[in-house]
Parts: sequence; C-alpha cells; structure tokens
Amino acid sequence: MTYPMQKGRLEAFSDGVLAIILTIMVLELKVPHGDNLTALKPLLPVFLSYVLSFVYVGIYWNNHHHMLSSARHINGTVLWANLHLLFWLSLTPFATGWMGENHFAPATLAVYGVVLLGSAIAYFILQGRLIAVNGPDSALAHAVAGRDWKGRISPVLYLVGIVSSFWLPWLSGAAYVAVALMWLVPDSRIERTLATEKSE
Amino acid sequence: MTYPMQKGRLEAFSDGVLAIILTIMVLELKVPHGDNLTALKPLLPVFLSYVLSFVYVGIYWNNHHHMLSSARHINGTVLWANLHLLFWLSLTPFATGWMGENHFAPATLAVYGVVLLGSAIAYFILQGRLIAVNGPDSALAHAVAGRDWKGRISPVLYLVGIVSSFWLPWLSGAAYVAVALMWLVPDSRIERTLATEKSE
Amino acid sequence: MTYPMQKGRLEAFSDGVLAIILTIMVLELKVPHGDNLTALKPLLPVFLSYVLSFVYVGIYWNNHHHMLSSARHINGTVLWANLHLLFWLSLTPFATGWMGENHFAPATLAVYGVVLLGSAIAYFILQGRLIAVNGPDSALAHAVAGRDWKGRISPVLYLVGIVSSFWLPWLSGAAYVAVALMWLVPDSRIERTLATEKSE
Amino acid sequence: MTYPMQKGRLEAFSDGVLAIILTIMVLELKVPHGDNLTALKPLLPVFLSYVLSFVYVGIYWNNHHHMLSSARHINGTVLWANLHLLFWLSLTPFATGWMGENHFAPATLAVYGVVLLGSAIAYFILQGRLIAVNGPDSALAHAVAGRDWKGRISPVLYLVGIVSSFWLPWLSGAAYVAVALMWLVPDSRIERTLATEKSE
Repeated sequence: MTYPMQKGRLEAFSDGVLAIILTIMVLELKVPHGDNLTALKPLLPVFLSYVLSFVYVGIYWNNHHHMLSSARHINGTVLWANLHLLFWLSLTPFATGWMGENHFAPATLAVYGVVLLGSAIAYFILQGRLIAVNGPDSALAHAVAGRDWKGRISPVLYLVGIVSSFWLPWLSGAAYVAVALMWLVPDSRIERTLATEKSE
Repeated sequence: MTYPMQKGRLEAFSDGVLAIILTIMVLELKVPHGDNLTALKPLLPVFLSYVLSFVYVGIYWNNHHHMLSSARHINGTVLWANLHLLFWLSLTPFATGWMGENHFAPATLAVYGVVLLGSAIAYFILQGRLIAVNGPDSALAHAVAGRDWKGRISPVLYLVGIVSSFWLPWLSGAAYVAVALMWLVPDSRIERTLATEKSE
Repeated sequence: MTYPMQKGRLEAFSDGVLAIILTIMVLELKVPHGDNLTALKPLLPVFLSYVLSFVYVGIYWNNHHHMLSSARHINGTVLWANLHLLFWLSLTPFATGWMGENHFAPATLAVYGVVLLGSAIAYFILQGRLIAVNGPDSALAHAVAGRDWKGRISPVLYLVGIVSSFWLPWLSGAAYVAVALMWLVPDSRIERTLATEKSE
Repeated sequence: MTYPMQKGRLEAFSDGVLAIILTIMVLELKVPHGDNLTALKPLLPVFLSYVLSFVYVGIYWNNHHHMLSSARHINGTVLWANLHLLFWLSLTPFATGWMGENHFAPATLAVYGVVLLGSAIAYFILQGRLIAVNGPDSALAHAVAGRDWKGRISPVLYLVGIVSSFWLPWLSGAAYVAVALMWLVPDSRIERTLATEKSE
C-alpha cells in the first residue's frame, strides 16, 4: 500500500512549516532605534539564541529529509506523528525569543530544553511509526539503527540542560550547544546504507 | 480533460497557505517580559487555543491531502472552491488569538465557531465540486460517501457551540474539542477504498 | 531550449510568495482588546479590504497558474518579469492595511489603485515575455489572445479608480470591486484551447 | 551516488525560505497612521531599501536556481552549505529594516554590507561544494567558470561599501546598487553551456 504522492506532499508541507519556523525566528531580532553600532549590542543574546535555534531547525530538516528519503511507505498515523513533530518545533521561535530577550535566564533555559526534548521525543515517535510501516528489514530501519547512539544521548543531554538550568545555567547552555554540534555532522550512515542498497 | 500539473500546483499552493496559517498562529504566543516561569502563566489560555487550532488546521491538511490524492480531475471552479476554503481557514489565527487572549469569553467562542462552521461549509462545497468533476463512480466519490457521518455531525456540533457560547461557554468549548477528537482518527475509509481500487 | 525543471521551480517559488502575501494580510486584522462583539466593529473596513485583496491575489494565482500551465518554455527574462510581478503584488498587504485602517480614505484608494495598476502592467509584461519565448503559434499565445478584452479593460478601470479617488471615492471602490468580479469567472477560454489542443 | 529527490527537496526548502525572506521584508513598511499622501513620505527610505533587498534576494534566487539546475549530485555537506547561505540571507530583512528606518546612516550601511558579504562568501562555499561533488568536468563547473568575474568583483565592491560607509556613505550605497545592477542581467553563460551540452 504505497502512496508516493502522499510522501511528496508530506515532505512539501513539512518543508513549508520548517522554512517558516526558521524565518520567523529572525523577526525576534527587532530593528533597534539607534543608528550606530552600539545600538546592536543589546541584540547579541537574541542573535546568539537565533543562531543556536537556526542550527537546530536545520538539523531537524536534514534528518527529516534523510529519514523520509529512505522511507518507501507512509500512512495516516505517520501524517499525525509528523504533525506532532511540527507542533513541538513550532514552539521553537517562542522559546528562542524568550531565552534571547532574557539573556539566557534559568527559567528560559529550562523551557528551551523542554521544547528540544519534546521535539526529540516526537521525532522518535515518527521514526517508530515509519519503521512500523516500512518493516524491520527496510533501508530506513537499517539506516536508523546505525545512528541510534546520537538519538539516545540527545534526550539525556536535554534532561541535563533542563535540570541544571536553575543551578548551573552555563552547563545547561553547554548541553544544548553540545547536542547541536554532535548533529551538525551529516548522518553518513544513512547515506552509506542507501548507497549500498542501490549498488546491490 | 485532466491537468495533472494543475492538481500538483493546487496542492502545493494549499500546502503553502496551510503551513503559514499553522505557523503564524504561534506569533500570538507573545514573548513575556518576565524571565521566570510565572511569567508564562497568563499565556496558558493562548497556548491552549493554539493547540486546538493547530489540531484543526492539521485535520484540514490531512483531509485535504486524502481527498485530493483520490481526485483525478480538477477545473476552474475547484480552484475557486479551494481558495474559498483557504479564506475561511486564514481567519483561524485571528479567531484563535482573540479567544486565547480573552480567556474563552462567550463572544470569542461564538466567533471561533463561526470560522469553524464557515470552513466546514467551504470544505463541503469543495468536495461537491470535486465529485461533480470526477463523477459519481470515482474513487473520490466512493471514499467520501464512507465518512459522510463525520461531515454531517461536525456542523451540527459547531452550531451547538455557537448557540451555547453565550449561555454555557463550557459546552461550547467542549463541542469544538469533541469535533477535533472525532477527526483526529485518520480517515481509514479513503485509504481502504484506494487500496481496494489498486489491488483490483 | 526547454527547462521543465525551471518552470516547476518558478511555479513553486511564485506559489510560495503568493501564499505568504495572502496569509500575512490577515495579520492586519489585529486582535481587538475587548471581548464582546462590538469590539469587532472597528475591524469591519479592515476585514472588507482583506476580502477584496484576498480575491485579487486569488485571481493572480489562478491566472498565473493557467498561463504557466500552457507555457512550454521559459528563460532568464521570464524569471525577472515574474519577480517584477511578485514585487508589485508584495505591496498589496501594505496598500490593503493602509486602506482598511483609514476607512477607504481618498489617498489610500489611490495608492491601492496604483498597486493594482502596477501589478496589471507587470502581468502584461510577463505575458509578453512568455509569448516571445513560446512563439506566436503556441497554445499560450492562442489562449491569451482569447481573453484580451479583460486584460485591456482592467487597467482602464484601475485608472478610473485612481483618478476618481479624490473626487468620488465610492466610484473608485466600485471600479476595484468591478474588476475583481469580472475576473472571478474562471478563464474558460484557456481551458478550452488546451482541451482542443489535446484532443487534436 | 545520486539523490534526485534530495535535490528537489533542497530546492523546495530553499524556495520556501527565500519566498518568506522576500515577503516578510515588506512587513517593515509599516502602515502609517495618517490617511493622506504626505503620510507616506517618511516611508520613502524604507521603501527604497526594500526595493534594493528585493532585487538582491531575487538575484540569489535566480543564481541558486541556475546553479542547482545544472547540478546532478548533492550530498550532506551541500545541505549544510545551503543552510549556511540561507542563514546569511535570513539576516537581510533585519539589515534592510535597520538601514531604511535610519535613512541609510553609516553604521547601517556597514552592517548591510557585512550581510551582503557574508551571503556572497556562503554562496561561494556552496558553489565550491557542488563543484567538488559534481566533478571539475561537469556542466556546473563549466558554467560557473564562465561567470567568475562577477563573483570576484562583488565581494570587492561589498568591501568598498563597508569601508567607505563611515566616510563616504554615498559611495557605500552606490557600491551596493552597482553590484545589484551588474547581476540583474541574467546569467546567459550558464544557459548557453547547458544548451550546448544538450545539443551535443
């Protein structure tokens, strides 16, 4: 029961939502009233939180792209698991803006971590639904198995970030940056699995 | 008289509009000035109304996706019926924001219901135009016939919500939540009909 | 020298820009502070101007869709002629908001007309470039010839609207509404020409 | 190791982000409170900076479109090089708004130039990654080689604009306008190379 069109539209819709999330975050960088360079100084934390969230949304787009390119089948539960992921990601601009405007205050770091954790769990659910639909021997299942360690460490680091935010805010920020750096490396295992499959 | 490209572009444009509607609703979740968790408290009703509307727009995207994937032909009236549906859905962010910021006040519940009812009627018109173009024996017509009960109950519940908003606001809210839950279940009948058709 | 991919991406990009123009106009419908129905009253002119502009952008999307679906070839000048059209259309939210918030004041009616006229001229240029690339015997050229009277009357009515705005504002508004109604009828000639061509 | 789907989704995502960047810039054209034409006067610098940035984003869309249409292969580093380009371009609305609202003050001209320079460098990196993946004998590599002089002059002019902004603001603005005009001419060399390749 394959729907190639549906997969295309799922990807297009997700691309649209992710593109908008990425771009409206920059609206939090509000144009300052002064016309000299010092007027930009108060924007620095907002800018830094924008960079971090841009990287996170970019990571989700990249991983979503890789995962769906190796998926052959989707169904109704995949559509909803995908919307659930988009819901969590849609909270990113809010969490980013709040964190940036309040100079990484403890509560804002905790909420940012909750949004990251919710997104990670939603991605994990989506991945599970896709494996269920495509079967345990699919290219998707093999590829995903290969990078499982990143998927397991990330939520642990998010939890570290949430818990430490009220005591050691710097550790909280460092945990979020660490996860972003870890994922920045493109997921070579899926590419390799797909390449192997094609050459077979 | 088939235009496969036109259908693709109709879907792409609708995806774009729905993706933007979904995402700009989150702009109503304005970044609070305080930097602690209690600063988030006043945002709770705005957040809840966002969740409800996110689910509604998600339902429309899912159903639109299913309906168009089983459509083979479109024409000029379908394009306008689709734009008419997008018009009503484009009022969702306004109705959602007004309802959330006023803590589900009676008038806001009524207006929210009017937008839902208008969207449902517009969807019904679009469905009728698509059946007219694709014929009473098309996969689309068969699939739609199967889920007609949901399409008939929803406007009744919206009317209950609109009428009760000024007397029993809780009933109004419950009616809207009930319709959302009813549709959250993916529309298995269309998937089944399509699968049957393919295996024939 | 055909670029089918380029045409697809031109359409996708235009769909994206038109979808965003359509949707950000609704942001001018600012959530009122009051929580009763009378709080919506001052929004009526903003809402009416939104409806008018929604119809206009819908007309452009429909016509753009029809024209490009009958185009077989594009080139670099078509890309820029298309961006030029999108530029004028991108001014629609501004002109709409200004007109709505100032209750259709003369100057706002004039500026709205200038944006409509600019869009019409840009569309005309794009059409000319497409005919030049596709040749005078193409399906596009034949189809466009059929509906030329609408394309000729529209700018005249926009000029009437601009000139009359300072003396007879109602005439100005009537002219803009008349053009919208005239175009709302789907462009059956292009559909017929395409259908004839296919059946040949 | 070709992924035709991935290229399509890379293009679609980039189109989405560029369409949003293009369109949200117009939100800086804030609806004035007065209802006569003189109320528009203070908006003139904002409008002019909008026109300039619209042309720049249009140039990037056109060049991106040309470059990717001649690319046959992409990989993970191309995805990130592309996101890096989108990051710099996403700062355009901010730089544009700040420059327009401050009537092209020196510091705003400098920051605008930095965003242009960053985008140019990011585009150069993306181009390098694409050539590395597609090989030195690919259509892409040949086409890019042909227009190298524009790619080399642009960053020099951006640097002139940045350096001169504090001493000769008019020279700075002239440099940015000159680069835009230089690129407005469609890149005929790539089209020619592609055409040659096809006719071979």
